Amino acid sequence: MPDEVLNDISHRRYNPLTGSWLLVSPHRTKRPWQGAQETPSKNTLPSYDPKCYLCPGNKRAQGDSNPRYKNTFAFVNDYSAVKETQQDYHPETNKDDVASLLLQARPVTGRCYVLTFSAKHDATLADMTPEEIVPVINTWTRIYASHLSPSHPLNGQAAYVLSTIPENPDGEVTPPKHQLKNMQIFENKGAAMGCSNPHPHCQIWTTSTLPEEPGKELVNMRKYKSDTGRHLLGDYVKLELEKKERLVWENDSFVVVCPWWALWPFEVLIISKRHVRALVDLDDKERLEFAQAVQEVARRYDNLFETNFPYSSGIHQAPLDCTEEEAEMSWFHMHFYPPLLRSATVKKFLVGYELMAEPQRDITPEQAAAKLRDCGGELYRKSLQ
Amino acid sequence: MPDEVLNDISHRRYNPLTGSWLLVSPHRTKRPWQGAQETPSKNTLPSYDPKCYLCPGNKRAQGDSNPRYKNTFAFVNDYSAVKETQQDYHPETNKDDVASLLLQARPVTGRCYVLTFSAKHDATLADMTPEEIVPVINTWTRIYASHLSPSHPLNGQAAYVLSTIPENPDGEVTPPKHQLKNMQIFENKGAAMGCSNPHPHCQIWTTSTLPEEPGKELVNMRKYKSDTGRHLLGDYVKLELEKKERLVWENDSFVVVCPWWALWPFEVLIISKRHVRALVDLDDKERLEFAQAVQEVARRYDNLFETNFPYSSGIHQAPLDCTEEEAEMSWFHMHFYPPLLRSATVKKFLVGYELMAEPQRDITPEQAAAKLRDCGGELYRKSLQ
Ligand SMILES: O=P(O)(O)O[C@H]1O[C@H](CO)[C@@H](O)[C@H](O)[C@H]1O
Ligand SMILES: O=P(O)(O)O[C@H]1O[C@H](CO)[C@@H](O)[C@H](O)[C@H]1O
Repeated sequence: MPDEVLNDISHRRYNPLTGSWLLVSPHRTKRPWQGAQETPSKNTLPSYDPKCYLCPGNKRAQGDSNPRYKNTFAFVNDYSAVKETQQDYHPETNKDDVASLLLQARPVTGRCYVLTFSAKHDATLADMTPEEIVPVINTWTRIYASHLSPSHPLNGQAAYVLSTIPENPDGEVTPPKHQLKNMQIFENKGAAMGCSNPHPHCQIWTTSTLPEEPGKELVNMRKYKSDTGRHLLGDYVKLELEKKERLVWENDSFVVVCPWWALWPFEVLIISKRHVRALVDLDDKERLEFAQAVQEVARRYDNLFETNFPYSSGIHQAPLDCTEEEAEMSWFHMHFYPPLLRSATVKKFLVGYELMAEPQRDITPEQAAAKLRDCGGELYRKSLQ
Repeated sequence: MPDEVLNDISHRRYNPLTGSWLLVSPHRTKRPWQGAQETPSKNTLPSYDPKCYLCPGNKRAQGDSNPRYKNTFAFVNDYSAVKETQQDYHPETNKDDVASLLLQARPVTGRCYVLTFSAKHDATLADMTPEEIVPVINTWTRIYASHLSPSHPLNGQAAYVLSTIPENPDGEVTPPKHQLKNMQIFENKGAAMGCSNPHPHCQIWTTSTLPEEPGKELVNMRKYKSDTGRHLLGDYVKLELEKKERLVWENDSFVVVCPWWALWPFEVLIISKRHVRALVDLDDKERLEFAQAVQEVARRYDNLFETNFPYSSGIHQAPLDCTEEEAEMSWFHMHFYPPLLRSATVKKFLVGYELMAEPQRDITPEQAAAKLRDCGGELYRKSLQ
C-alpha cells in the first residue's frame, strides 16, 4: 500500500500526464446523500428498435438509410461538431491590438464519425465477447490507418494493417479531403454521460488541430523522456505491476489500473505493456488482448453496482500528422471516466469546487481498485445470447 | 459583432485566464435530442422545512442545532473535504526513485464552511432583492477578512471592513488554527449541479494549498501584466464595454458578460470595473452594486427558460496568504457555470470529447449574451413576498 496515512488524510495527488493536481478526501463518502438520484438502467431494450437511427436497415435523421450491417458500421455524423469544408477564416493578429490578444479564435475543420459496435440494439461491450469486440478494434484501426498523413512515421504499419485486417463490407471509410491533425475515438455510455441513443456506438472526431488533452499529455511525456531517458507510461506500468495495489487486471499485453491520479471514483486506464504508439502497432494477438481488456473493464463496471454502468471512454495515441519524435513519445492508452460513486443511483458531481478550484475525489484509487478486482467473473445479468 | 463568419464555422477560442483553448460549433444545436431530460424544478417548497438541516432552529446530521438566524448563518461543514488537523505526512522525494516522480502526494489541510443565504427554505438569489443579498456579501467579506495572513497586503482593508460591516449575531467565524493559503467561495444550485439541499446556501472551502484554477489564473494574469504593463481583466472589461456584443448588463461598478471563451452554454462572468483585488476592497456602494449584479444574473437565468436555473458559481480573488505582487495581480471576478442548453430540460453534457480531447460548446457566447440581454425585467414566477 502507499503510506497508510493516505487512507485517512486529505491530500493532493499529481497527474504526471496532464501536469496538474487533484484533491483526495478519503473520509468524505460518509456524508448522507439527499441530492439527485440517477435512474438505474434496466436492460429491457429490444434487440432491434424500428425507431433507432443506428439499427441496421433504418433511416437516419437526414434521410440516409443504414445498410443491413453485421457488426460495425461507420458513417459521417449527420450533426458533426466539425466539418471538412467551411468558409475560410484568417484572424488578424497584431501584438499592439488588445482585441487580438483577448479575443483569439482559430478555424477548425475535420470529420466526425459515428461507429456502431454491434447490430444488436441492446448489446453493450459488457455483453459482447472479446471475439465480438475484435471487429470494433479492427475498424478503429482501419479508420486510424486511412487518415494518417502521407509522411507519417507509422505509414508502414498502416499499410500492413490495411492489407491484413479484413475490410468491412458495410461501408468503408474514405480518406479525408484535407490532412487532419488528430483523431479522438470516444464512447459516451448511458444517459448520465450525455448519450442520446442506447444502441452501442462510439464517436470518432478528427480535427485539423491537436486538442488540449492529448496536447498536454504529449508535452508531459516528452518532458519525462528528456528528463529520465525513459517513457512515462512505460515506467508507470512497471511500477503498478510491482506495487499491485492499483492493479485491476492484466493479460500479456495490457494492464488495467485505477491510476494514482484518478479523478472519477472508478476511473481506470488501460495501458499497453510494451511501447505501442498507436492502434496500427498492435498485432492480431494484441488486438484480441485489447478486446479482452475492454471487455473486462465494461463487465466489472456493470458487476460493481449491478447496473448498466455509465462512462465516457477514449483512446490516446500518436496524432494523425506528426513527426518521428512525436510518434516515439506517444504511448497507447485508453481512459474510462465513470460518474457513479456509491451505487447505481448516486453519482459524483464534478461541480462547484471542482470547476472553480480543483478536481476533488472522495475515495482513494486504491479502494476503488480493490472493489474492481473483486467483481470479475460472469456478468451479473443474463447475457444476451 | 466579431467576424460574422464565426457564427457559422467551427473554431477554437482562447481562454486567456487559463491559457487553454475550447472548440465552438455554432451550428450544432440543430441536432435532435433523444437523451436524458432534466426535471424542470417547480417552486413548491415550503418556506420552512422541519427536515432541512439548514433551516433556522433545526438539528443537523451530527447533532448540532442551528440558531434561529435571520439571514445568513455560517458553520463548519459536518462532512468537510479538508480538516484543520490531521495526521502529518511528509512524502519522501528522491529524484532517482521512479515512484517519487509518478506517485506524488502532498497533505492538504483547511476548513470548509456552509453558509446559508436566507432563513427561508424556498428563497433563491433570484427571489431575493439586492438589499437582501447584501448580508450574504457582507458575510463573505467578513469571513475572507478574518482568514487573511498576518502579513497580508490587504490587512488594512480587512481591519476597516471588520470594524464597519455589522457582525452577524448568529454565529461569528473564528480565525483558522493554522494560516491557510486560499479561500474558494462557491454555490452549487440545483440537483443537476450536485446540490443536495435546496435551502439557499453556498460553501466556502479554505485550503493550505493554492488550487489549480486560481493558480492558473494568477499565472496568466501575471504574464499579461508583465507583457503589456496592464491588467488582463482591466483590458478585457474595457474591450467588452466598447464591443457590447457579449455584454449582458452593467452598473457603475460591475459588468456582466458572456466571456469570449465561455464554455458552458450560458456561462457568465461578473467583473469589477475598477481594480478590486478582493472582497475587502469593495466599499458599501460597491457591495450593494455587486449584490445587484448577482441578482441580475440569477433572475435572468430563471427567466431564460422559466425554470429554477441550475448553476455552479464561484468567486476568484487574492489568496489568503500572498505577496504584495500576487495581491496586485488579482482582479475580483465571479464565474457562473450553468449546464442548461436548450430548455429547462435539456442540458449540455461535458463528457466524451470534452473530457478526452477538448471542451466544446454549441452556441456562440454572442448568441447566449443576446438571449440573456433580452430576459431582464420581473422574475417570471411570482416572487416569494
Ligand atoms: O458538499 P455537497 O454539497 O454535499 O457536495 C456537492 O459539492 C461538492 C463540491 O463542489 C462536490 O464535491 C460534490 O460532488 C457535490 O455533490
Ligand atoms: O454527439 P452526441 O452523442 O449527440 O452528444 C454527446 O457527446 C458530445 C461529445 O462528447 C457532447 O458534446 C454532447 O454534449 C453529448 O450529449
